[in-house]
Amino acid sequence: MKIDILTLFPEMFDGVLSSSILKKAAEKQIVTYHVVNFREFSNDKHQSVDDYPYGGGAGMVLKPQPIFDAVAHLKQKSENTQPRVILMCPQGERYTQKKAEELAEEDHLILICGHYEGYDERIRTIVTDEISIGDFVLTGGEIGALAVVDSVVRLLPGVLGNENSPIMDSFSSGLLEHPHYTRPADFRGLKVPDVLLSGNHRLIEQWRMKESLRRTWERRPDLLENYPLTPEQKEWLQEWEKGNYSSSDS
Amino acid sequence: MKIDILTLFPEMFDGVLSSSILKKAAEKQIVTYHVVNFREFSNDKHQSVDDYPYGGGAGMVLKPQPIFDAVAHLKQKSENTQPRVILMCPQGERYTQKKAEELAEEDHLILICGHYEGYDERIRTIVTDEISIGDFVLTGGEIGALAVVDSVVRLLPGVLGNENSPIMDSFSSGLLEHPHYTRPADFRGLKVPDVLLSGNHRLIEQWRMKESLRRTWERRPDLLENYPLTPEQKEWLQEWEKGNYSSSDS
Repeated sequence: MKIDILTLFPEMFDGVLSSSILKKAAEKQIVTYHVVNFREFSNDKHQSVDDYPYGGGAGMVLKPQPIFDAVAHLKQKSENTQPRVILMCPQGERYTQKKAEELAEEDHLILICGHYEGYDERIRTIVTDEISIGDFVLTGGEIGALAVVDSVVRLLPGVLGNENSPIMDSFSSGLLEHPHYTRPADFRGLKVPDVLLSGNHRLIEQWRMKESLRRTWERRPDLLENYPLTPEQKEWLQEWEKGNYSSSDS
Repeated sequence: MKIDILTLFPEMFDGVLSSSILKKAAEKQIVTYHVVNFREFSNDKHQSVDDYPYGGGAGMVLKPQPIFDAVAHLKQKSENTQPRVILMCPQGERYTQKKAEELAEEDHLILICGHYEGYDERIRTIVTDEISIGDFVLTGGEIGALAVVDSVVRLLPGVLGNENSPIMDSFSSGLLEHPHYTRPADFRGLKVPDVLLSGNHRLIEQWRMKESLRRTWERRPDLLENYPLTPEQKEWLQEWEKGNYSSSDS
């Protein structure tokens, strides 16, 4: 996969793209990153990328020309004539794991990151997707682009060591993860649940399933709306709704 | 504000914390960042931070000891005896602008970033908040922590030049932003709406309000559920629901 990132702050990408999984994926040549300062594409003699808004008001607006020409240049260099061109913006579709899985099927992504300012509306005519990572305001699109890159690249075949890892994650299974414990069994008086020390794998699996369901029910009941519950799981939920549970039951 | 970040990948923070607004806020001494590798707090002779999960299964689990001791150390150094201790995790509360505003009132945040692995459940006993930036899977908590830091720091008084900027953003007003345009009025055949060139400020304000409402209705109708609509806005919505609108009406 080829990932081009258009930004006015290329240095924001250095640390993350050269660490951990994203670095390893590039070393294994599963992905190539190309961070481009779109100011270089400005045909203005001052290399300006923004201008005052028509109709007045505070703030500046990113001009269409530099971004149009940067995207055209990247498309021209691409073997894929239809790359996904993704605008990072607060008005975009809310990013989800489903979208990450969809983007992981592509072979060329172009991510456009604004900073401080609005985009000239005409820029929207050359994009295929508009993505927002959530209902909070960031200074620019860069951190959102990092989230998209990380979530997509880790799904590419060969990137994560254990091929089973991606499907075991939260959200992929549809429920939140069960609690985890490691040594020591007694840490400063805080103990690991007995069942996990029992060696009884059937009971451990049942405990994990139940705790995963309980955590989801407590914290993210919205995730249960479309979850296919077994009759046993429905019974557990009914008990919990009556207030009948302890943290150590199995 | 003092922001401590606990991570196994401190280099992931270099680029973002030393760019743009986050850099300026530190230069103005409005905020100090302190990125700490919690491996340094491991009392294990190999400085290990993780171990196998009790009960078996794939993956590793972050041990309680290094994180407990790192947080205790940071608290001890703090004048504030009750810092917010925030665990970045997929099971956490979904991050919103409201949460960013709440955290911006604090004077000391400690953000804990896991990587690949689960947290030993006992770590949850020393945190005040658990935050997830969205329903997608990231390799670690670092990118989420960057999102929290950026969204909080930009709200601190004196960070953004124009004191009015934060309240004009999407989500802060409750609606998505209206379209923006800048020069040229005709860019490769794509034109700016006539109203924005009219010089009539009353019409421009009305157009912007209407387009902001329309964009929200089209893309994020959920945001309108609790929005206090004026009678005029209600009429617009009724017209749009009947399919009566063109992109140039004002």
